[in-house]
Amino acid sequence: MRSNSLSFEVLRRCTCAIGAHARRGRVTTPHGTFETPAFMPVATAAAMKGLTPTQVRATGSECILNNAFHLLLRPGAERIKNHGGVENGGVHNFMRWNGPILTDSGGFQAFSMAQINRMDEDGVTFKSFIDGAMVHLGPESSMSVQQALGADIAMAFDDCPPAGDAIPETQRRERTLQAKDRTIRWLKRCVTAHHREDQALFGIVQGGTELDLRTASVEETCAFDLCGYAIGGVAVGEGTDAIERVVRHTAPLLPANRPRYLMGVGYPRDIVMAVESGVDMFDCVLPTRNGRNGMAFTRDGALRLRNAIHSDDPNPIEPDCDCEACAGGFSRAYLRHLFMAGEMLGPTLVSLHNIRLFQRLLLDIRRAIEDDAWLQLRDRWPCANQVQGETQELKGVSDE
Amino acid sequence: MRSNSLSFEVLRRCTCAIGAHARRGRVTTPHGTFETPAFMPVATAAAMKGLTPTQVRATGSECILNNAFHLLLRPGAERIKNHGGVENGGVHNFMRWNGPILTDSGGFQAFSMAQINRMDEDGVTFKSFIDGAMVHLGPESSMSVQQALGADIAMAFDDCPPAGDAIPETQRRERTLQAKDRTIRWLKRCVTAHHREDQALFGIVQGGTELDLRTASVEETCAFDLCGYAIGGVAVGEGTDAIERVVRHTAPLLPANRPRYLMGVGYPRDIVMAVESGVDMFDCVLPTRNGRNGMAFTRDGALRLRNAIHSDDPNPIEPDCDCEACAGGFSRAYLRHLFMAGEMLGPTLVSLHNIRLFQRLLLDIRRAIEDDAWLQLRDRWPCANQVQGETQELKGVSDE
Repeated sequence: MRSNSLSFEVLRRCTCAIGAHARRGRVTTPHGTFETPAFMPVATAAAMKGLTPTQVRATGSECILNNAFHLLLRPGAERIKNHGGVENGGVHNFMRWNGPILTDSGGFQAFSMAQINRMDEDGVTFKSFIDGAMVHLGPESSMSVQQALGADIAMAFDDCPPAGDAIPETQRRERTLQAKDRTIRWLKRCVTAHHREDQALFGIVQGGTELDLRTASVEETCAFDLCGYAIGGVAVGEGTDAIERVVRHTAPLLPANRPRYLMGVGYPRDIVMAVESGVDMFDCVLPTRNGRNGMAFTRDGALRLRNAIHSDDPNPIEPDCDCEACAGGFSRAYLRHLFMAGEMLGPTLVSLHNIRLFQRLLLDIRRAIEDDAWLQLRDRWPCANQVQGETQELKGVSDE
Repeated sequence: MRSNSLSFEVLRRCTCAIGAHARRGRVTTPHGTFETPAFMPVATAAAMKGLTPTQVRATGSECILNNAFHLLLRPGAERIKNHGGVENGGVHNFMRWNGPILTDSGGFQAFSMAQINRMDEDGVTFKSFIDGAMVHLGPESSMSVQQALGADIAMAFDDCPPAGDAIPETQRRERTLQAKDRTIRWLKRCVTAHHREDQALFGIVQGGTELDLRTASVEETCAFDLCGYAIGGVAVGEGTDAIERVVRHTAPLLPANRPRYLMGVGYPRDIVMAVESGVDMFDCVLPTRNGRNGMAFTRDGALRLRNAIHSDDPNPIEPDCDCEACAGGFSRAYLRHLFMAGEMLGPTLVSLHNIRLFQRLLLDIRRAIEDDAWLQLRDRWPCANQVQGETQELKGVSDE
C-alpha cells in the first residue's frame, strides 16, 4: 500500500560523466521535508547519545533514524504511542524531534545482536537483553511496533544474513537466495499489515553480493508499488569493494521516481560512490560511535584525538568547520584532555563535529549536483578518495 | 597582597528580621561581573560533565569553579598556562569559558581523596591517581598552580580536617586547633607566593565546629587584607545542624565590604540559611552529581527519575521551569527512559535542570533581598524548609 503522506521530487540530475546517476531531490513527510542526498544520524533508543535535539538540528540534520528493536524492548512501543495522551504523538513527541523520523524494522538487530531462540518463516524469537523475556518479531509485529512508534517512514521486515566468513562459502548463495525470497514473502505480509495513512513503508532489496539475485530482488520488490526502496544487506561484513560493486549494480535498477536508501552506509567514500550510483538517503552510526571514542572525521581523513601528538595543539579539529566544537574554539589539546579525563563533554563535542562533517559533505554533494561540478567535489573531499585501512565494521545497526 | 583586579559592591541589604544579614551585591573580575548571592557550578576538570559552555551560560551561571588538584594532575598547570600560546590564556581559553572562574587550592582533595604519603608543615605529598607519580602540594606550589591556571579568584591553601567520626572525639579539638593555626601560617606563605595582579586571593577560615576557634580564625585571617574570605571546613561530614551553627556564627564576623564564600555548600536549605547569615558565594557539586544519577531538584524537593512512577508521566520535571529540559518539553517518562537505557542525554538534561533550579533559587534570593520580601521567598521554595533525610554528603569537592 502506498501512502500519500510521502512524496519525492527530483530537482536536478548530474550530467557530468562520473556522477551520471547522482540526483538532487526533496522528500516531503508529515513532519516536514528533507533535502536529498540526505544523511540521517542514528538515535538508537530515541536519543542521540548526549546530544539535545537542538544540537542535532544545528548540525544540519533534517531526518533522523530510530531503532524499533531497542524501543520495542525499552520503553515499549505502546508506551511511546500513548506518550502524553497526544493523538499519534509517538516517538516525535516522546523525544522532542519534530522533523522527519525513519524507523528500521528491528529485524537486523534481532538477527545479529539478540540471543536467538527460534528463527523461521514467521520471524525471530529472541531473549530480551533487558529482562530475559522471550520476544517475537516478524512482519506483522514489526509493522505493529513501527506504526505505534509513528515515524514518518517505516521499513519492511527483512531477512538480512551476515556477509564475510559468517556463513561457509559453500552455503552462501543458498542462504542469500533464501533470504531474498523470504524478504519478498515478508514484504507481502508487511504491506498487508501496514495501514497507517500518515506513514510511508519502504521495501528492502536483498541478494547479498550476488548481483543476479540483487536484480531479481529489485524486480520482485518493486512489483509492490511502495513510497521508497532500500538497499539492505550491505555493510554487514563484506568489505568496501563488495559494497561498491553491489551499490553500483543495484541503485540504478531502482525506480527513478522513488527515493533510494542505502542502509547503514557508511564512510564518506561509500557515500560519494553511492550518490554517483543514484542513492538518495543514508544512515550510519559512524559519526556518533567513533565520536564517542575520540575519533574525529575530517575532510582529510580520521584524527585520533587521544593521540599524544594533540597534547598542546591549539587548533580545532578543522579550522574551516562551522560545528559547535570547531567554531566554538575548542582545541585539539582540550578535546584530548576531555577524552583522557573521561569527561562526557568529549563525546558530545566530537559527535557534534562528526555529524556536522557528514552534513557538510552532503551539503557539498547537493551543491555539486546542482552545479554539475562533481569532479571538484572529489578534490575538496580527500577522505572520499581514501579506502579505510580497516574493512567496514559490521554496522551492528545500533549506536550502542 | 590585595589585588586591584577584583571589587565587591554591596547594592542592598535586607532589613526584614529573618534575613537581616542578607545582602545583594556584585563582584567584578577581569572576566566580567557576577551578581551575589551567587551559585557557582563545579567544572572539576575544566569541563561541566557533558554540558557545553553555551548550555552552562543558559542556566544563568556567571562564575564557575575548577579544581586545581585535578588540573594539576591532568593535563598539568603549565600545559593550560601555555595553551594556544595566548598570553595568560589559561583555563578560560582552554575550556572556552570567558566569564569569571574560581579555582580551589587543591588542598582539600589532596587531603581527602589522594593516597597520602606524607603530610606535614610543608604541605602534602601524595600519589597521583593517574600515573602513580609522587606529587607535592603546599602553599607555594598551590599558588604556582593556581597562577598558572589563571582563574579570576584563587583560594589559599588550607588544612581542612574531616568532621564527624573520622577523628576520635578526644582528639578533635586539638586537631581542629592545629588545622586553624596551620592554615594561618600557610596563608602567610600563600600571600608571599601570590603575585599575579589579575587574580584575587581569598583566605579561608577554619575552626571546625568549635565556635571560639572560628572566631579566632576570622580575626587571624582578616588580619591579612584580602579580596575575599571563605568559610572552609564545612560540609565535610558534620551534618546539617552543625553547618547552620557554624555559618550563623561565622559569616557575620567577616568584613562586610568583602565577598563571603561558603565552600562546598549545599542544599537549597543550607543556601537560604547561609544567605540569611550574610554569605555571598556558594559552590556545590550536588546539581550535576545528583543530576547524573537521575535525581532532579525541584522547588518541592527531590525527584528520583528512575522511579517506575514516572514511566508514563507526560509532565516535565517542573512545569514552570525555564531550563532546556523543562521548557524543551522533555517528559518525566522520557527522562526515565534515558536513565533506564543508560543514555548520556539523561545526565545532560537533568544536570541542566538542576543547575538552572539552583540559579532560579539564587535569582529569587537576590530579588527577595531587593524587595525586602524574605518571608515570601521561603513560601515559594518549600525545599528550603526541608531537612534532607540524609546528612549532607562529604562533599568530596570533585564532581567525579
